[in-house]
Amino acid sequence: MKPNEIKEESVKLHAKLRGKIRVEPTVEINNAHDLSLVYTPGVGEVSRRIAEDKTLVDTLTWRKNTVAIISDGTAVLGLGDIGPEAAIPVLEGKSAIFKRFANIDAIPLVLNTKDPKEIIETVIRISPSFGAIQLEDISAPRCFEIERELIKKLDIPVLHDDQHGTAIVVLAGLLNALKIAGKNIKEISVRLNGAGAAGVAVADLLISAGVPDLIMFDRTGAIYDGRENLNTEKERLAKKTNQQKRKGSLAELASGSDVLIGVSAPCAFTIPMIKSMNDKSIVFALANPVPEILPDEAKTAGVLVVATGRSDFPNQVNNALCYPGLFRGMLDSGVTQVTEEIKIRAAMAIANVVGSPTAENCIPSIFSENLHSVVAKSVQSE
Amino acid sequence: MKPNEIKEESVKLHAKLRGKIRVEPTVEINNAHDLSLVYTPGVGEVSRRIAEDKTLVDTLTWRKNTVAIISDGTAVLGLGDIGPEAAIPVLEGKSAIFKRFANIDAIPLVLNTKDPKEIIETVIRISPSFGAIQLEDISAPRCFEIERELIKKLDIPVLHDDQHGTAIVVLAGLLNALKIAGKNIKEISVRLNGAGAAGVAVADLLISAGVPDLIMFDRTGAIYDGRENLNTEKERLAKKTNQQKRKGSLAELASGSDVLIGVSAPCAFTIPMIKSMNDKSIVFALANPVPEILPDEAKTAGVLVVATGRSDFPNQVNNALCYPGLFRGMLDSGVTQVTEEIKIRAAMAIANVVGSPTAENCIPSIFSENLHSVVAKSVQSE
Repeated sequence: MKPNEIKEESVKLHAKLRGKIRVEPTVEINNAHDLSLVYTPGVGEVSRRIAEDKTLVDTLTWRKNTVAIISDGTAVLGLGDIGPEAAIPVLEGKSAIFKRFANIDAIPLVLNTKDPKEIIETVIRISPSFGAIQLEDISAPRCFEIERELIKKLDIPVLHDDQHGTAIVVLAGLLNALKIAGKNIKEISVRLNGAGAAGVAVADLLISAGVPDLIMFDRTGAIYDGRENLNTEKERLAKKTNQQKRKGSLAELASGSDVLIGVSAPCAFTIPMIKSMNDKSIVFALANPVPEILPDEAKTAGVLVVATGRSDFPNQVNNALCYPGLFRGMLDSGVTQVTEEIKIRAAMAIANVVGSPTAENCIPSIFSENLHSVVAKSVQSE
Repeated sequence: MKPNEIKEESVKLHAKLRGKIRVEPTVEINNAHDLSLVYTPGVGEVSRRIAEDKTLVDTLTWRKNTVAIISDGTAVLGLGDIGPEAAIPVLEGKSAIFKRFANIDAIPLVLNTKDPKEIIETVIRISPSFGAIQLEDISAPRCFEIERELIKKLDIPVLHDDQHGTAIVVLAGLLNALKIAGKNIKEISVRLNGAGAAGVAVADLLISAGVPDLIMFDRTGAIYDGRENLNTEKERLAKKTNQQKRKGSLAELASGSDVLIGVSAPCAFTIPMIKSMNDKSIVFALANPVPEILPDEAKTAGVLVVATGRSDFPNQVNNALCYPGLFRGMLDSGVTQVTEEIKIRAAMAIANVVGSPTAENCIPSIFSENLHSVVAKSVQSE
């Protein structure tokens, strides 16, 4: 199906549904007795008991199974800052996926403020209503402060999906691609183009997973400790990456690397770049809908494994492989902080769902049997 | 069934359900094509169109059918300030009723702030997510400022149910009780005990409906213009009620009245008070679960019609008779301000559902056929 046909069919479907999700009672209300249990007077006793012991809220209400999906509409898909209303369809889609794949009740909540302090404050104020918080489509670098402060101040899980969901699935795909290439993650050179929400999280996770040589690039070129024009996150990462403080453009420094990852812009990777990489090279071109390089071109230039963000090419890096199971696992285990160890275990769980990885199949489908349950289980160590 | 049995059965039901509501997708997601319509890439086009024309959010998402039920947990049923978590069971019950009787998707949102300015600010910030706001279980007098400011600042309906839901159902019951008594609302004397959220709204609506002689009482006694210890709302109402500035207690001033309404405290009405009223008197004793006077006692003392807030006595004043249909009507009509005229029309619609009112049947059951649809229709004048 062509992109334009998908667009038209999707708009038609949305106009027909007027909402991809709905709220349903879990109980019949057919007579006065039903009502006396669901509502007053019976519900008064339920409230009274929770007032006496707050922990009962998780066994007597829906809270423990709920996630608020929060966005300010500043980074909606590849569309940028298009406002809170325009983020609702994306958040509804995430909610439908949450229920379909992990039986979680997720509520789209869009905010009409872009001020990080106000966003933090607002999420804290509504937090008693929810079991976890998913941040979504919030632009960098604001998203880093918002997530960091909320993790610090709340005792429920908080996760910015565009950062960590992406990072986990990238690592999952990379683990399988390295099996195919016969390379060890602790010996590879990685070049990472793009230092926004996803780029920062991917860099952190690859370093945690043992990648010894990683250089990040933004529009100015290679990021190194001491460079000018670095925001707080880039400064922090400059100290952890590019230990030799190499300077230059991606075109200059791609040479001799094993893995090229783009979370950047259409057509950012060129054929000469690709050709300058080591044998059995791996390219993740994740700009969406137009990737940094098309898979066919990359293959022709000699790449062994290519992944994109697109559903119509092999090896789709899709956050939805991760977040339903990850939140299921967090809610069920009572673990409230998503550590680097948990992210690595989740990535390994996703990678292992693909029994025998090949160049055309190194990332599982969202419909793979057991995918979401093994991700949920990975939250707790054995 | 005895109250203690209801309590136990309700707690058991809540423990079994772990949530009286859930979120459900309205669409199947069974293959990559489904996913491409519900989520990326198709959803991108939906977001793009809403960004171009914000009004499309109401036809392409669930927003137009959603209500946020907001509470800070400061006035939960008769239990007082028991905290946001303890309000969740009540809000879930309201949500289940919203769906069951008016097909509305309502989301419980409890806040961990009691500061009116912060509550107002928070509701404004999340407002792009919703089609309407229902305020619930927020204590007086804070609730008045919160509702007033939100009505002023938002372009979606905002309604504090404990005020207006109660007032509308009281007026509905009173209209039918007056038919039974053969009295005209424009000629009656009403004494109203309690000047909290419900009392203030009942007073305003009765005056709008034409009651000529209304005296309100708080713990200090009759409210009159110029009295000490009046908050802003009581001061405002002092100018509209008790034109003769009568002073004294309810016991002193109940004499010669036609209607006695309590939204106050258990056992606040005595038999001598009741006996001092006019013939064919009407008593609404709405304190819950223990009313101002028990129906049997009131009847024995000569009252013609008694209503309470209890489901196990005749004539239950229950907000749930009103709010599902009222919000349905507001969402469908695009009317954003609940005027006094709308409230009176809603009350008349509820009253008329009872074909031939009797002393034991002057308020309809929530299960009455057409109740919620006639309330919804009443929002728009003919």
